[in-house]
Amino acid sequence: MSYFQRHIFFCLNQRDNGEASCAQHDAQSAFDHCKSRVKQLGLAGPGGVRVNKAGCLDRCAGGPVAVVYPEAVWYSFVDKSDVDEIVERHLAQGEVVERLVLDPSIGR
Amino acid sequence: MSYFQRHIFFCLNQRDNGEASCAQHDAQSAFDHCKSRVKQLGLAGPGGVRVNKAGCLDRCAGGPVAVVYPEAVWYSFVDKSDVDEIVERHLAQGEVVERLVLDPSIGR
Repeated sequence: MSYFQRHIFFCLNQRDNGEASCAQHDAQSAFDHCKSRVKQLGLAGPGGVRVNKAGCLDRCAGGPVAVVYPEAVWYSFVDKSDVDEIVERHLAQGEVVERLVLDPSIGR
Repeated sequence: MSYFQRHIFFCLNQRDNGEASCAQHDAQSAFDHCKSRVKQLGLAGPGGVRVNKAGCLDRCAGGPVAVVYPEAVWYSFVDKSDVDEIVERHLAQGEVVERLVLDPSIGR
């Protein structure tokens, strides 16, 4: 049994060299929104969901990105409604949001 | 198939309010050492291993901590030789290093 049933990591990496990075896409707001929704829905904590900050997840070309473990499902999202869908369907119910899944070919 | 075969997240959280945090235990050095060893051993990259920075993993009482996904195995480590063992046994070969596994009762 996993300590957290589902653990989502948001890349919040900021690059200052002109290369693409998730922070340019307001990943911090998406993280904050996700954390707040998970708390509101009573999902947070051991045995439940953990919403985590992460450094570069190395799939920058698809940014902003997040990954949900232990399922190893990677998402690219655009706005808060995308994040809501990840929370309500995947984090709450374990259902993969196929339309937001990152293409396997997308890397750094 | 997971984009990374194994993805290890090190908590590098720094608290300035006197509470325990992984950064006080030199988690940054452990992260740097792990990243360097994984690269030296040719394990890094898609289909292989990713060594990642993370914010607070919320199991501060066991700090410094790291978690390996998709296995969801949590470790508490003391020194570089502990990190070497996690790299050589778990990240390279998929073998859990039982002596370093965090007790399930340890939380924040």
